Amino acid sequence: MLKETICSQGQIAVQASKELSSMNSSEKNRILLKMASAIRTESCEILQANKMDLEKGRKNGLSEPLLERLTLDPDRIEGMAAGLEKIASLDDPVWQHLGSCKNDNGVEIQKVRVPLGVIGIIYESRPNVTADAAGLCLKSGNAVILKGGKEAINSNRTIASIMKRGGRGEGLPDGAIQLIDDTSRESTSILMKMNDYLDVLIPRGGKGLKKAIQENATVPVIMTGMGVCHVYIDSSAEPVMARRVAVNAKISRPSTCNAAETILVHSDVTGSILPGLVADLASEGVEVRGDERVIKEVSSVIPAKDEDWKTEYLDMIVSIKVVNSLTEAVDHINRYGTGHSESILTDSYESSQYFLRNVDAAAVYVNASTRFTDGGEFGFGAEMGISTQKLHARGPMGLEQLTSVKYIARGNGQTR
Amino acid sequence: MLKETICSQGQIAVQASKELSSMNSSEKNRILLKMASAIRTESCEILQANKMDLEKGRKNGLSEPLLERLTLDPDRIEGMAAGLEKIASLDDPVWQHLGSCKNDNGVEIQKVRVPLGVIGIIYESRPNVTADAAGLCLKSGNAVILKGGKEAINSNRTIASIMKRGGRGEGLPDGAIQLIDDTSRESTSILMKMNDYLDVLIPRGGKGLKKAIQENATVPVIMTGMGVCHVYIDSSAEPVMARRVAVNAKISRPSTCNAAETILVHSDVTGSILPGLVADLASEGVEVRGDERVIKEVSSVIPAKDEDWKTEYLDMIVSIKVVNSLTEAVDHINRYGTGHSESILTDSYESSQYFLRNVDAAAVYVNASTRFTDGGEFGFGAEMGISTQKLHARGPMGLEQLTSVKYIARGNGQTR
Repeated sequence: MLKETICSQGQIAVQASKELSSMNSSEKNRILLKMASAIRTESCEILQANKMDLEKGRKNGLSEPLLERLTLDPDRIEGMAAGLEKIASLDDPVWQHLGSCKNDNGVEIQKVRVPLGVIGIIYESRPNVTADAAGLCLKSGNAVILKGGKEAINSNRTIASIMKRGGRGEGLPDGAIQLIDDTSRESTSILMKMNDYLDVLIPRGGKGLKKAIQENATVPVIMTGMGVCHVYIDSSAEPVMARRVAVNAKISRPSTCNAAETILVHSDVTGSILPGLVADLASEGVEVRGDERVIKEVSSVIPAKDEDWKTEYLDMIVSIKVVNSLTEAVDHINRYGTGHSESILTDSYESSQYFLRNVDAAAVYVNASTRFTDGGEFGFGAEMGISTQKLHARGPMGLEQLTSVKYIARGNGQTR
Repeated sequence: MLKETICSQGQIAVQASKELSSMNSSEKNRILLKMASAIRTESCEILQANKMDLEKGRKNGLSEPLLERLTLDPDRIEGMAAGLEKIASLDDPVWQHLGSCKNDNGVEIQKVRVPLGVIGIIYESRPNVTADAAGLCLKSGNAVILKGGKEAINSNRTIASIMKRGGRGEGLPDGAIQLIDDTSRESTSILMKMNDYLDVLIPRGGKGLKKAIQENATVPVIMTGMGVCHVYIDSSAEPVMARRVAVNAKISRPSTCNAAETILVHSDVTGSILPGLVADLASEGVEVRGDERVIKEVSSVIPAKDEDWKTEYLDMIVSIKVVNSLTEAVDHINRYGTGHSESILTDSYESSQYFLRNVDAAAVYVNASTRFTDGGEFGFGAEMGISTQKLHARGPMGLEQLTSVKYIARGNGQTR
């Protein structure tokens, strides 16, 4: 029964994707602007729905970072509306010309961008993803099937239905934006095998979801948002800057995937860095776990277990490890990192170049917080998630990352 | 035991991929040129090995198209060597600059191309793929694990070992090019779950392989080379050109994935097209299957079954169907096609534009043979296969398609 419902949503989405792929930019932009104004006009309805989700969440004992992710306020609702307007202002990627050649026989070959078709996205508690994902998919000519988390079901339902109501008057095709009204794992299992209707499935979420999808999906998948991110403080780092950036990477929004989970410190500077760094973190309320050499320097630190190096806390917890060299830092990162965002704090040009070249991740920073890995910061307007795989898209996924290509070739009777 | 062997090949490949990713273009080009000259020098050894494969193939009753694919001759060996030289002459995609921005905080963000890492490729009888794949992977900074078909095992072993011998003196890392010395399905099953060592698996081959991989692979996959390609003869097509191109698309090399399998003919021109077209095909030795309306026009045609519309013959067989309109042709293609190569033969500008926009395939042609979908014809030097999926790569896969991206960002202490 659930399977039939979701498959029929898939069918409608395929139909809608055909209409969407041939809509021109101004038609799509008009819909986006209308959806933005609908979100503004109906913000009370969204806040009410969100309140229901928050009350249920508190009753069910959701952790503080999860409640923080779930929360909407007038600012965040304005952010959703502004995000849709920003997407409307971006260049339309569809039918963009990517190059051309004339082969020896005179056939003119052009490469153009085309939409992917139907995009499925599975996401957790953050309800603004509903608006961002729908907006990006619409502008890139794709139909979207949204599956949000159970914690946010009332917020998501309300946001999706407001956008659909708003867009319909401006020609939004039926089935262009659909929310799955089931938050159980069963609908995820159905989506991951829906090859007839889905061109790609984008899971945003934790390890469990990722593992289930990696092992069972038959549709093409883009893995996003697993972030065991590191900040490495090199021996040459300017100490005040190093402490400031490392602390920011941890605490500015710990529930996001680009927050730092582990800080690596060069053994030459443990004395000058660790006491102040740990004090800064502790004063912000961060629980600090460290290896033996960290504890030797600051005895209040909790001993880290092997498990800690691979853990994405998404919380006010950090692990700190002392390394003997830049190469040891890079090896640790390539071993335990998830290929998301990695930063070196250094004053050495050579170290910075080595780090940028050899760390294998979507985004690699010198003297900046890992927190900058974000569609907004990268100029994409919004994002569908941050890809941590190498295939198709890596890093924040904006409009371009939601397209494929097509070669169109014009001849006058050429044969081979 | 087999699993351990293949996993240890995977480990060595990962090691090699790290070395390869930091080699500069001239180092890689020297290796490619050396491999090309080794292939020329040792061509007798390759021909001998190929002769063994061909004899075994004939004894085992391989079909003519398969034997044709398997066959190497001095020209084809020269083609492999020239292909490696061509790859050496192409621009190195690694560390290519793809764009940059400065965010509001002053962090400079650059997007650059990086290798994928370790690429696995499973291919069937054509032994030149061994050289093409190894050359493309090397130039794009990737390690490659090759699994060829059992029919070509002697040819593949010889080609791989000649390339490795040739390249080693010029600094080819151990493990950069590895052939799996097992041609059973078991090694395919191992490869498709080797997430620790493979960044992508590219299966080139038939429906059975594709299905097994789609259902079971846990590694990222790029599906290639499934080609149920169509030529549609529009009512306005110039008849002589139309017949010539349609026949070429079928017969010029029927064992390739870009060969046409079905010809669609507009109902207005059945009388002027079909008799001549069927006669041309028959005189070339093509078995023609058609729907009722085709048979009504040319009684010698064999009745086509529903199965025929979805069949990739890869042989001297073609199916012909009469359609009432351009839209019926496009609907048929989008339903039965595999998203590979599709061609319209027409003199109508409007029909050509409709076809180019609405046919959902990697390559869409006007007045040219589907046979042009090929890495060489598209200026890529060689190809790893022709992707029939939308994710990551679509159409012929050359150097660019074997890369991912990385964002590198330089700041001076920015936080968020």
